[in-house]
Amino acid sequence: MPPRQRGPAQALRDPPPPQRLQGIKDTALNQTASKPHDRLAAALAAEMEAVNAVIRDRMASRHAPRIPEVTAHLVDAGGKRLRPMLTLAAAKLLGSGDERAVKLAATVEFIHTATLLHDDVVDESTKRRGRPTANLLWDNKSSVLVGDYLLARAFQLMTECGSLEVVTTLANASAVISEGEVLQLTAAQSLATGTEIYLNVIRGKTAALFSAACEVGGMVAGATPAQQAALFAYGDALGVAFQMADDLLDYGGTAAIGKNIGDDFRERKLTLPVILAVEKADATERAFWARVIEKGDQREGDLEEALRLMQSHGTLEATRLEAHAWADKARAALSDLPEHPLRDILGDVANYVVARLS
Amino acid sequence: MPPRQRGPAQALRDPPPPQRLQGIKDTALNQTASKPHDRLAAALAAEMEAVNAVIRDRMASRHAPRIPEVTAHLVDAGGKRLRPMLTLAAAKLLGSGDERAVKLAATVEFIHTATLLHDDVVDESTKRRGRPTANLLWDNKSSVLVGDYLLARAFQLMTECGSLEVVTTLANASAVISEGEVLQLTAAQSLATGTEIYLNVIRGKTAALFSAACEVGGMVAGATPAQQAALFAYGDALGVAFQMADDLLDYGGTAAIGKNIGDDFRERKLTLPVILAVEKADATERAFWARVIEKGDQREGDLEEALRLMQSHGTLEATRLEAHAWADKARAALSDLPEHPLRDILGDVANYVVARLS
Repeated sequence: MPPRQRGPAQALRDPPPPQRLQGIKDTALNQTASKPHDRLAAALAAEMEAVNAVIRDRMASRHAPRIPEVTAHLVDAGGKRLRPMLTLAAAKLLGSGDERAVKLAATVEFIHTATLLHDDVVDESTKRRGRPTANLLWDNKSSVLVGDYLLARAFQLMTECGSLEVVTTLANASAVISEGEVLQLTAAQSLATGTEIYLNVIRGKTAALFSAACEVGGMVAGATPAQQAALFAYGDALGVAFQMADDLLDYGGTAAIGKNIGDDFRERKLTLPVILAVEKADATERAFWARVIEKGDQREGDLEEALRLMQSHGTLEATRLEAHAWADKARAALSDLPEHPLRDILGDVANYVVARLS
Repeated sequence: MPPRQRGPAQALRDPPPPQRLQGIKDTALNQTASKPHDRLAAALAAEMEAVNAVIRDRMASRHAPRIPEVTAHLVDAGGKRLRPMLTLAAAKLLGSGDERAVKLAATVEFIHTATLLHDDVVDESTKRRGRPTANLLWDNKSSVLVGDYLLARAFQLMTECGSLEVVTTLANASAVISEGEVLQLTAAQSLATGTEIYLNVIRGKTAALFSAACEVGGMVAGATPAQQAALFAYGDALGVAFQMADDLLDYGGTAAIGKNIGDDFRERKLTLPVILAVEKADATERAFWARVIEKGDQREGDLEEALRLMQSHGTLEATRLEAHAWADKARAALSDLPEHPLRDILGDVANYVVARLS
């Protein structure tokens, strides 16, 4: 992750006090911030510091020091922290950046981290099939149990906000997330998987936590029902656009074959470009997809053939357009929210997730 | 599990209507119920039917039919259902057996089932080390994700009771459960594990959900703070007694060596009989424990030697007495609750968990 930058963020209503930026290199300060994610980080720098403090505090375990050991690399490494920033931005653009928004932002990050830990178990199992080292097994145990611990901590933290509505929203998101992951297990590798199932899977994978993150931020800031619906719609559409873009980039976007592409193909995951190609397949093409996806019998040149089929049916381009349509939907949802520099940045974030596709 | 029996249960204030018992064999009806668990089941038969209906309903998944497949054998097989019965009993003896108690009982069973699913992953990893079949891997994935789903459903269900206090109590219990399990990972196989750590581990393993199950049942029945504390204390002490008894029975109780004993020894788990023996060990004995537990270098005759050491230091008897003391504590806590036939049965349940030890 690039260092936080200032620039347009200086125009925001509540710029972080200068001392918050002491750790940041001068070169970073002198650059004009371009990526909307960095502008979001700059606009929410003070709040994110508070979120990080809550995360460090609540991640600790009095009895089991292994817990922070396991989570530290995940949480400290940080990732992009987009989800907690969505919560903070939603609360702040509705006029509230109080302690409850900070706690909910940390809650959202805990849920995300727990999901990553459990995904590790699910993914490692297949990738390292046949060679379960003691280390792998230890990791599996720790991943499952520490993930459970983070989830429990998340529910403790969210109850502190004193809103059952918030708890219900995040519990619902958790159910959609795990349901989507189970669905992916069963839907994967079956050509019967259509776009409806795909949408459910990516809502579980990405959009459910994005929408809940936005929604609960609004809830503690006293959003009206219409504003809450707008925040949900924004997060949902942003998450769908984000995941569709990711799935398209796995095939190199609309461009030709590059390096490191085709991971989903090799793992026989049915993502939108393939689903659309299967829908348009003739008998020969269907036999090809059945062999490489359903049977997993993949040979030299199959990825290239898959790409050729997707290009001939225009499914990469169709996926790109679909992702753009969802990004448009995300931006449109923002119009029901008050004017605010953060609202503009959120709109730019929606643009950005699909801008990398063209 | 033996069939439910009647008998003393007929004296209860709210005996189940006769049609509830249609499925039960006449022989069962004619027996006098002896085990307190069966009397509890008989006294709560109508409520438990409602709990089972909620479980079946909420376990379903519109999108992912694999979920009920995985949970069905766990939930339908049933186990003893002691935890949900604790919730129902707590609510009913305080005068309320309403829909909320039923939902919370189902919630408690969901949390328990999720824990079992995640334990499977943790346990299977060691037991089947070195031979990860595709089936095992599939099970691991399903166990992790379906466990997550049940946990999310549990939190959805508990929020429907409209009490943040209830959510906080169950979130706290979830944190203690997972913390205890992580602690067991790290504390296992280290002779430094003392009785304090052991208590934390068994609270996570058993007592935390017992106490929360009792407490939330009281909460929705309008328990006073003193009654809530009594319910917590009862469930906590019952859970500790229950787990200590289990750990002692793994070494055959106070009796001599039997069959199927020593599983904990072979898995190098430090339970109370061993912990107390390590505390009293001389240098030679300590070297023995270090070899068999810390290094895991176990040879023919080691279990017998371990039993001899535990018997010579009286640690099996000390564990039995300790379990009895916790059962006494559980019974004593009940005195702060109103007189009620269910209160008497709960007292008998506490007796019963340690009665099998002598």
